[in-house]
This record gives sequence, C-alpha cells and structure tokens, in this order.
Amino acid sequence: MTPALNLHPDRLLPVDPATRDIARSLYRAVKDLPIISPHGHTDPAWFATDAPFENATALLLQPDHYVFRMLYSQGIPLEALGIAPVGGSAAPGIDPREAWRILAANYHLFRGTPSRMWLDWVFAEAFRLEVQLNAATADLYYDHITAALATPAFAPRALFERYGIEVLTTTESPLDTLEHHHAIATSGWQGRVLTAYRPDPVVDPEFEGFRDNLAAFAVLTGKDTFSWDGYLAAHRQRRAFFAAHGATSSDHGHPTALTADLAPHAAEALFARVIRADVSATDAELFRAQMLTEMAGMSAEDGLVMQIHPGAFRNHNPAIFARFGRDKGADMPSRTDYVHALRPLLAKHGNNPALTIIVFTLDESVYARELAPLAGHYPALKLGPAWWFHDSPEGMRRFRHATTETAGFYNTVGFNDDTRAFLSIPARHDVARRIDCGFLAELVAEHRMEDWEAAELAQDLTYNLAKAAYRL
Amino acid sequence: MTPALNLHPDRLLPVDPATRDIARSLYRAVKDLPIISPHGHTDPAWFATDAPFENATALLLQPDHYVFRMLYSQGIPLEALGIAPVGGSAAPGIDPREAWRILAANYHLFRGTPSRMWLDWVFAEAFRLEVQLNAATADLYYDHITAALATPAFAPRALFERYGIEVLTTTESPLDTLEHHHAIATSGWQGRVLTAYRPDPVVDPEFEGFRDNLAAFAVLTGKDTFSWDGYLAAHRQRRAFFAAHGATSSDHGHPTALTADLAPHAAEALFARVIRADVSATDAELFRAQMLTEMAGMSAEDGLVMQIHPGAFRNHNPAIFARFGRDKGADMPSRTDYVHALRPLLAKHGNNPALTIIVFTLDESVYARELAPLAGHYPALKLGPAWWFHDSPEGMRRFRHATTETAGFYNTVGFNDDTRAFLSIPARHDVARRIDCGFLAELVAEHRMEDWEAAELAQDLTYNLAKAAYRL
Amino acid sequence: MTPALNLHPDRLLPVDPATRDIARSLYRAVKDLPIISPHGHTDPAWFATDAPFENATALLLQPDHYVFRMLYSQGIPLEALGIAPVGGSAAPGIDPREAWRILAANYHLFRGTPSRMWLDWVFAEAFRLEVQLNAATADLYYDHITAALATPAFAPRALFERYGIEVLTTTESPLDTLEHHHAIATSGWQGRVLTAYRPDPVVDPEFEGFRDNLAAFAVLTGKDTFSWDGYLAAHRQRRAFFAAHGATSSDHGHPTALTADLAPHAAEALFARVIRADVSATDAELFRAQMLTEMAGMSAEDGLVMQIHPGAFRNHNPAIFARFGRDKGADMPSRTDYVHALRPLLAKHGNNPALTIIVFTLDESVYARELAPLAGHYPALKLGPAWWFHDSPEGMRRFRHATTETAGFYNTVGFNDDTRAFLSIPARHDVARRIDCGFLAELVAEHRMEDWEAAELAQDLTYNLAKAAYRL
Repeated sequence: MTPALNLHPDRLLPVDPATRDIARSLYRAVKDLPIISPHGHTDPAWFATDAPFENATALLLQPDHYVFRMLYSQGIPLEALGIAPVGGSAAPGIDPREAWRILAANYHLFRGTPSRMWLDWVFAEAFRLEVQLNAATADLYYDHITAALATPAFAPRALFERYGIEVLTTTESPLDTLEHHHAIATSGWQGRVLTAYRPDPVVDPEFEGFRDNLAAFAVLTGKDTFSWDGYLAAHRQRRAFFAAHGATSSDHGHPTALTADLAPHAAEALFARVIRADVSATDAELFRAQMLTEMAGMSAEDGLVMQIHPGAFRNHNPAIFARFGRDKGADMPSRTDYVHALRPLLAKHGNNPALTIIVFTLDESVYARELAPLAGHYPALKLGPAWWFHDSPEGMRRFRHATTETAGFYNTVGFNDDTRAFLSIPARHDVARRIDCGFLAELVAEHRMEDWEAAELAQDLTYNLAKAAYRL
Repeated sequence: MTPALNLHPDRLLPVDPATRDIARSLYRAVKDLPIISPHGHTDPAWFATDAPFENATALLLQPDHYVFRMLYSQGIPLEALGIAPVGGSAAPGIDPREAWRILAANYHLFRGTPSRMWLDWVFAEAFRLEVQLNAATADLYYDHITAALATPAFAPRALFERYGIEVLTTTESPLDTLEHHHAIATSGWQGRVLTAYRPDPVVDPEFEGFRDNLAAFAVLTGKDTFSWDGYLAAHRQRRAFFAAHGATSSDHGHPTALTADLAPHAAEALFARVIRADVSATDAELFRAQMLTEMAGMSAEDGLVMQIHPGAFRNHNPAIFARFGRDKGADMPSRTDYVHALRPLLAKHGNNPALTIIVFTLDESVYARELAPLAGHYPALKLGPAWWFHDSPEGMRRFRHATTETAGFYNTVGFNDDTRAFLSIPARHDVARRIDCGFLAELVAEHRMEDWEAAELAQDLTYNLAKAAYRL
Repeated sequence: MTPALNLHPDRLLPVDPATRDIARSLYRAVKDLPIISPHGHTDPAWFATDAPFENATALLLQPDHYVFRMLYSQGIPLEALGIAPVGGSAAPGIDPREAWRILAANYHLFRGTPSRMWLDWVFAEAFRLEVQLNAATADLYYDHITAALATPAFAPRALFERYGIEVLTTTESPLDTLEHHHAIATSGWQGRVLTAYRPDPVVDPEFEGFRDNLAAFAVLTGKDTFSWDGYLAAHRQRRAFFAAHGATSSDHGHPTALTADLAPHAAEALFARVIRADVSATDAELFRAQMLTEMAGMSAEDGLVMQIHPGAFRNHNPAIFARFGRDKGADMPSRTDYVHALRPLLAKHGNNPALTIIVFTLDESVYARELAPLAGHYPALKLGPAWWFHDSPEGMRRFRHATTETAGFYNTVGFNDDTRAFLSIPARHDVARRIDCGFLAELVAEHRMEDWEAAELAQDLTYNLAKAAYRL
C-alpha cells in the first residue's frame, strides 16, 4: 500500500501537551501573516516574465543544492540528475523524468532533514498530493506537478500572491542592469520584488574575473574603477542606482568576517596592489576586510542595511567545481571569528544607532560566545537568523537557545529564507514560525514569560522585526 | 489594565508534569538553604558602613552592566542612564528618576534574558511589587523602591541577613588596604564578608598603571617589587595578609588561559623585561602565563584556592572605554584554549590533591571537549559553574549537560553569583537551584539516577560543594 | 537499608509519556538484534584461549580508564587501584579486593556518568546483583563477581555468545602476528573476531620506537622499509595479510586530521627525512598527513574501509605517562579542524563512491559545522558515531541533533563501542539503541517522520548501517 503523505497540523510544535497547546495558540495567530522575505536568491526574471516553470525536476530538484548534494553524497552522479556542466545546458540525454525517478527512489535519504519537510510541504500544500514520494509514485508525482505548472495558478506571480509574499528581495551584482526589476516595476503588477547590492564580484580580488569585472564596472558607471577614488565613487553611484530600484540593503559574502580600518593612503596603496594580476592572498583578504568597513561607511551615508554572510569555504571539491562551477553543494562552513575580526569596523561604525549591520554565521559555536554579546552591546549590530546549513528546525532552536539570553529578541531580525528554490519560501517561513512559536511556548510553560508577551513576540519575530530591520 | 507581576512557584522547572513533580520536591528541600557566595564583586563598604542605598536607579540600574548594555544596544546613550564618565560622577543633569523611566519604557527588551528574571525576583520578592515594570508603572516603582531603601529593613546588613547569606566573598587588589573588611570584622556584626586576592593590577604588565602599581606594592609590603625575588616575596606577604583577613582564595582574570613554567633564571629575565615601559605583547602574555604557575605554587604552600577566569576581550569598544572606562558592558568573550594552555601548570601542580584550582570559561565549546576531560583526570582541577554571559537558565543547562558525563558532579564546585548587583545574589542563587533541581529531576525521570541520590546531589550542588571547594 | 539496584525498563527513553510510548515500541523491536561491533580494543587472546577472567577488579576496574581516571581526579593514587606501572605488573602489595573496595566506597562519584550506567548494567544483567555497589556491599560484589567468573558461563566465548555478538573487531599493529586471530579461526569456534589494520606505530614518526618498528616491519615483510617504495610495499603486503585474517578496515589515530597530497618525489624526500632520528615536528605532522592520503589510495585498491580517529592530545600528564605509560586516562580531546585538513585527501579520493572513509571526532563543535556538511556531499565520506568522551547519552543526543539535518541518517554508520572493557560492549550497545530510539521517537512525536519510517531507521541504525559500512 502506498504510504499517505501527512502534514500534521502540530508538526514541529513541542511534544509536551500543555506546551503544545500554548504553541498552537501562538502559531494560529501568525501562520497567515504576510511573508517578508528580505534576503534570498530567487531569479527576478521569473516575476518579470511570469513564464511557467517547466517541469517538476526543473522546479524542485535542479536548482536546489540541498537536494542534489544529498543524492551526490550517496554516489549518484550529478550528471544523472541533469545538472548542467559549466558552459553547457543540462547534460545531454538526461530526461528530466529520469532524474525525478532517481530523487523519488532515494527520497528516504532525506528522512530527518529540512529538505524533506520543505518538499513535503510543497507536495501537500502547493500540489495537493496525498501519497508519499517514492519509486512507485515517481511518475504520478512528475506528471501531476508538471501538468499543474502549465496552468495559470502556478505561474510565478500567481504563486507569489497565493502565498502572501508582501515583499521579496533578490540579490544582484553591481554589474547587473536590474532590467528584470525594472520590468517588474513598470509592468503594472503590484508584487514588491526588490534587489540587494552584492558587490563581491568587484570587491573580492580572488573572485573569478575580478579585473574584467572592474572594467565592466567602469563602463557601467563612467568612473575610473582602477583608481581608488574612482572605484569608491563607482560603488556610491551603483548603490544609489540599486536604491532607486528599491534596494534597501547590501550583502557581503566573504570567506571570513575580517574587517580593517586602514589610513586612506594605505587603503589606496592596497587597492593599487589588488588590481594587479599577481595579487597575494594576504592582500586579497586585507582588501576584503577594508571594503567591509568602507561599505559600512557608505551605509551610514545612504541608509542601505548592511548584511555580512561570512565563513563559507567555497568550492571545496575541485572536481565538482571544474565540471559544474559554483553553488553546486560543495561549499563548506568553516570556523569563523567575529570578536576580533569585526572590531575595526565596530570601533569605527558600531556606535552609530542610525546604521544597521546584520551578521550571519555558519559557525554556531559563536552564537553565545561572540555574536550575542556583540549584538547585545553595539547599537549598529543585529543578528541574522540561523543560516543555510542551520536553517532547519534544530538549527533554529539552537539559535534561539544560544542567543536570546544575551542578545534578547530585539537585537534579532526575524527570518530570512535565503533560497534559490521559489516554492521553499512559504515552506521555510512556515517552519520558522512553528519553531519560534514552540520556543516562545516553552518560555511561557516554564513561566519565564507571560502568554501575552509571547503573543507580541510571535508577531515581532514573524513580521515586525524583519520589516523594521530591513527598512521595508 | 496593568499587567500583573507573577513569580510562578514552578518557574524554570521542567515542563513535563512527572519531571516537574520530582523537581519541585528536590527544590523544596534546598530553596531555603543558606547562600554560599564564594566569588563576586559587591562593595565591602556597603557592609562596613551599612549606609542605605540611595534610590532605585543607583541600586538596580547603574551598577549592572547586564542591564545598561542591553539598553545601549538599542541606541540609548549611557549618558541618559546616568552612567558616570571617567573622572566624573553621574553625568550632569541626569535625574535618576528619568534614567529609571528609560529602563521602564524599554523593559520589554529584556524578555527572555536572565536580567529580566533577576529583576522581577527583586521587584516581587524584595519589594513586594505586584504589577509589571513598564512606562506606566515607572514612577510607582521608583517611588516605592526608593522609599523602601530608606528604611532599616533595606540596609545592606539587614538584606544580607534576610536572604540567608552565610558567607560572601568580595574581590580586592593586592593594593587594597582591606579597611572595609577590617571594619566589618571589628564591628561586632556577625556577617561573614571575606576578601579574595586578585593580583591582576600587579601581575598583568598591560594593566593600566602597572608600574605605578608595582611601586605602591613596594610601599605596602616593604619589598623591592622591581626585583623578581622581592616581587614574589611581596605576593607571599600580601597573600598572608589577605588570608589573615579571611581570604580563602585568589582570583586571576587573564585574557587567555596560557600558563608557563620557565626555569628560574628565565623567569627572572622575563620579569626584568616586563617592568620596562616598552614591554612587548608577547612578553606580557608570557609573564601572565608564568605568574599563573607561580601563583599555583604559592597556593600549594598557603592553601588559598586558585580561581582562573580567562577569556574576556576587555574594553572591546574604544569609544566607550575612552569615555566611561572599564566594566561598562563592552567586554566580549573570546575563543579560549585550555588543553594546551594549562598544560605547563598542570604538569607541575596538577597531580597535587591538596591544591584546588577552579577554572571558568566564557567559551562553552570547551565544556565537553576540554574542561570536563581535564577536571575528570587532574586531582587539583575543579570546574567553576557557568559564568557571566552563561550565568543564565540556558547557560547552566548547557553546562550540566556538557560537563557531567565526563567530570561528574563532584569535580564541580556549586554556584558563583559573581555579581556587582547586591540584590541579584539571592535572585541568581534561586535560579541556579531551580535549574540544578530540574537537571537532576530529568536524570531521575529518565531512570539514570535514584531519587534519593538526586536529593543528596541537590544539597551538594547548593551548599556542600561550594563550602568544601572554597574551604569555607 | 541497602539501596536496591534498579535497571528500569524505560531508562534513557524520553520523559514525555506519548513520546516514551513510541520509543518503547521502537526499542522493543531492536533490543535483541545481534551486536555488530566493528571497532574496539578488546584483547583477541581472550577469545583465542577462552581463559576465565581473574576477578572483579581485573575485569571491571583495571582495564577501564573511564573508571580509574574519575577515581584519580578525586585524589586516589593509581597505585592504590593496582594499575601496573611501566615495566611491572600490578603494584606490589595491592590486593585486588582492596582496590575494589575503593571503587565501591567512591561509587557515588560516577553519578550522572556513562560509566555508572554501563557498570550497573553489568552488575544487574550479567551478574544479577540486586543491591547498589557501595562501601557496605563491596565484598558481596567482589566475592559474587569473582566466583561467577570462575564458572564456564562467564568464559569469554560464552559471554560473546550470550550477548549475541555477531561480529567483533579488534585493532592490531602491522607488527602483530595475528596469532590470536589465527587461533580463533582454526579453533572450530564459530565466533567472528576480526582484526583491523592500525598502522600508527609505523606511520607516526613520533610514536615510541618508530625506527625500531620500521626495522621490525622490514623483518615481517621482507621489504626495504627504509626506502619509500619498500615502505609502501610493506604496507600493501601487510594490509593483504590482515585482510586474509578477516580485516575489513584500517584505523588511524592521528593527533590532527591533517592530510596532504604531495608529489611522489616530495613524498619520497619527506620519508627520507622522517626516518632520521632528528625528525622535526613539522615533518612528522606532514608525513602523517601524507600517509592518510596514501592509505586512502590503498583502500581504494584493496577495499579496506578507512577509519580516521583524530584529535586526541595523548599523554597530557607527564607524571602519569612516566610512571604508567599510555592509555591511562590522561589523553585529552583537542580542537580539530576537518574542512581544511581533509581537503587534500578528499580532493583526490573523496569522489570515489567505491571507497568508504569513516571519520570520528572528539570536538563536537565540528558536527554541524564541518563533518555533517562534508559527509552530506562527498560520496566517500561517512560519519562515525559519538566517540570516547562523547559515547554517552548526552553525547549521542548531541551527535544526532547536530548531524542529522545536514548529513541525514544514511551518511552515518551505526554504533561503535570502541571499548577495552569486554562486558561494556552489550551495555554500550544497549545505551546506543535506547538513545537512537528516543531520538527517532521525538521525530515521530513532532510529526517530522512517520512511525514506520522510524521503525525502519531503528533497524538501520542498530544493525544494517554498521554491517554495510564496514563490509561485514
């Protein structure tokens, strides 16, 4: 018999009956609040063109590195899943239905993972499927989902509206023309799809094509981006362009959280070295560090909220990088220091209450030791939610347990889904709301907080904090 | 309607009903045991003079860096709270009532923090307030508390007795004359207020005024404190002076846990370098390291229990340090190694069962990895409780969960409140008793321990271990 | 009245009644499955000779460093426990009964520790004792256990069979002749006792007697083990010899997880340096790193599963090492990097789905940050269970909570008891089964998984994963 697909109404709520009752009541009041999605990596072209998604595999498997990395870890080649090699489209000869069957036959691998919860939510809530995905139901799933995607109710804008997304922010390089955001804004559609300024390609001297990127940066801005002053002016101009297209934030994905505050002439001399082909690793790191402080200064001027996402060791697997390129599930977290690393930036800008810097981590050992103490002191600093590998029920619980006592709730900024997989947005926000309500319910059940305080906080964590912190 | 202030009798106990019953019963038997407070930073002058506290703000806000750092993190200037700048008294023009109103209006920021639990305990238990603190009740609170403080029942000695403090230890520099402790001892009052020997000002070459401190050390002791032998002799003499005034312990607050065991001539040569104005950071660190081993040796001689409190990055915020000085909520924990750092000291003194070294940490990642394994082997080493940022319900739970299986309970030393805020002493001990009883109740409920064993342990963790470890 | 010894049938299961019911049902189905013990340090001579164990102290106290390190930490000299000094047998004049009395009088020290749970299991299940061990029952215990050990039912092979051990793997040096394994194989007894290839004595240039070991390695293999090619050939030959005696795995216990992938001539030059008496610490570390990659390559050839057990700071206490030698409870965990350290090996062999590398850690901070992300991507990499200091109820829970969401269950390999204390094998497997069933029950109770999925997983975690991963 085919196992049923159940989304239990109490899923992820605490198991103690009295605590679960409190959590249910908190959750009931926030589950239908609009979604604020202030950080993520969905494709703005979806909303500009409103073209339908192609099939189940293209929607749910191929863009989701959480999913294909798990399959790969068990010996399934990425080629068999139709992941496109560098410079090519999907591997020749791969039928998306065949790729889907592989996922289906291996779906048990995801037991206990957030991917399983997100996908089951999509299957049950978005597509109304009533049996579990497995080898026997693979074709049923593929046909049902693919057929649904061809209908108007599953077009990107329709889904955006159906799931109550009030605002969604994508992430673009300074070299992006923002044509899709422009098209959305002038389309007459009311959906708010904003951009965020992500300057890594022109800030990180070790980024692929850094010097070419600087040249393109010059063309776009008319500035001499190979001089320090011109380079900074180009950033200022491009940040203003992004802000004019709705951006309220910048985003910085550095290997470490190192910051620096060099004297102007030293910064200029450093810049002259990093634009050379033979830039050293030390100079590259110092330049990224200096640029975080420069960007904080620009944020203090132009009001863009600054996000720092450090600590990923990118492209850890050279064979995968050579064949498939970036963002293929081979990035690894690494140990990350904040107390020492952020000090130069915080010494210069951390006491500015008009500035908002939101910091994330892939290293949970810093939650209680470094990030909560820093955010519980510096007016400019706020804590982003549990991120990436830690965007999960257990990860969110660890985040709340470890940060709340020192940072409080009001130095945090609500939830970020940070996803490339569009339909995981409502699924992920639902998980976050359930986990936060469960955490608050435990505080009430232990008499550490009144029920009405928890109810206020549930609204804040779901909606108000993100909206305020990101100036949305 | 004004929300009621509730201190629920079951607060902080486990939520599972059967486990809560066990915890209640354990807690009932220890809640009224005398308080042993073997480490803290209250002012001995309070007990020497028995002068009343001035007002609510002076008692509860201005001395408590946990409280004002949270307010500061949300953009409230320390000046507005009447925190005294360096070299001044409270900022001119600040009415303590106005500062109190700021705390009251922002009291929601403390939801989920230990400060909230401690303050609510003080409000409800000590001052019998029955409504929550908020903007509407700010003046009610201020007037009620300030009026109570003027009555004899709220004089320092009366509070000391009311809350069953059997012994309280303060912390003094070797340069302190211990006049307040002398005054207490000769006053006829029976309260035991001891001192502890905290030599950082004459041990840390990077401490403000180190060389002046050495000169004062010479004056006090009659020793040549600028020679290695005279310097060590001055320590010995001063430790004996402290012991004669009741001290049973020394305390060492170094940036790291590094220890060293240099040959005598190398130590002497190092000393000659660190007393120079141009001491290097490397030499300063090595000297602190060497002095931990020297102090352990003196403890082996004179029986003072040695406490090591490493890992704080002091004065992280230069603007706050320049304006307000030390201990203003801008110290940050940092990653701390113990297994390598303590080895020289432990190799020399760790096998001595007559010596007690109590080690604390701000880096919880070492609980299970380093501290519990070390304390579960070396006879001289004991684990201090969850400290500072981790002196909290979640922090204490993490401590017990992470250390008990490898160190056992009997290599720990009970609770330390470590506070500067007098009335938080009973509040903090109450939290610790509740959390420990909850942890023990879980072990009983999981059938990992018998109920009578948990009852014995509750007594030990509350009273016996601290009294024995600190030789009180 | 003497306290009863209780092994409650629900011990270690979750306290919430509904969750406990689920856990009970899961546990009931796996509690009697055969034991797969793929990694440990029991003595193969026990099973070759089937000689009875001597007495309670020789069976339960003297071989168990978990037990005597706790006693030592409270000031009890190892001599008093009859621990043999280097070069001697048990300390002269120590009656094993007296040593047992010390354990009994101090048995309260083990409250809350896994040793207590394992020993109580042995007392109650294996020896049917019905009162707790304490000073009053010390002689009752000693006499009862010692008498039982003299009976055929307590001979090593009888115990092996009674506890349903399907396969047990010991660990031997390449210099071991495997005579005991040979004797077992040719004895007619059906018990499967395998060996594992543990080459540290001939791989680690800092191992005691490294150059003598290489000389012995040459004698055994007939290869020129002081040349790089001969040395590698000797490993290949000896691995084949071990495989012929049933080995399915190798094991590597390095101070760190560092790996290297040097060019052949550089590896050869390094080898020439490390066989000299004046080998540097840097070269020793680099050689260990290179050898992990060499061994992975040999595993890819010969199919031996590779286990890496890094991160122990061995022999931390020089006085204990000088008097009693290795493995006397004075090894300490240390902070361990994996993401950077394993990269050279993984870049070379990590994408090989035919290779299995199982990695362990003593540093729990890497579970969610490094090990789960690595194992959730690289086909060759699997996660060993909670190890050594973390082989405990809390340690296992932390392992599952921290690794499952990113690595899933199917990149883990079941339980390893890793013990030197024979009767702790069934005790430890019972703890692991209870904790895993409790974890799965929580997932079911939170509606993160169906009950039938949890039932499948309970079988996998108890039996199937270990059997498959270790190719048993």
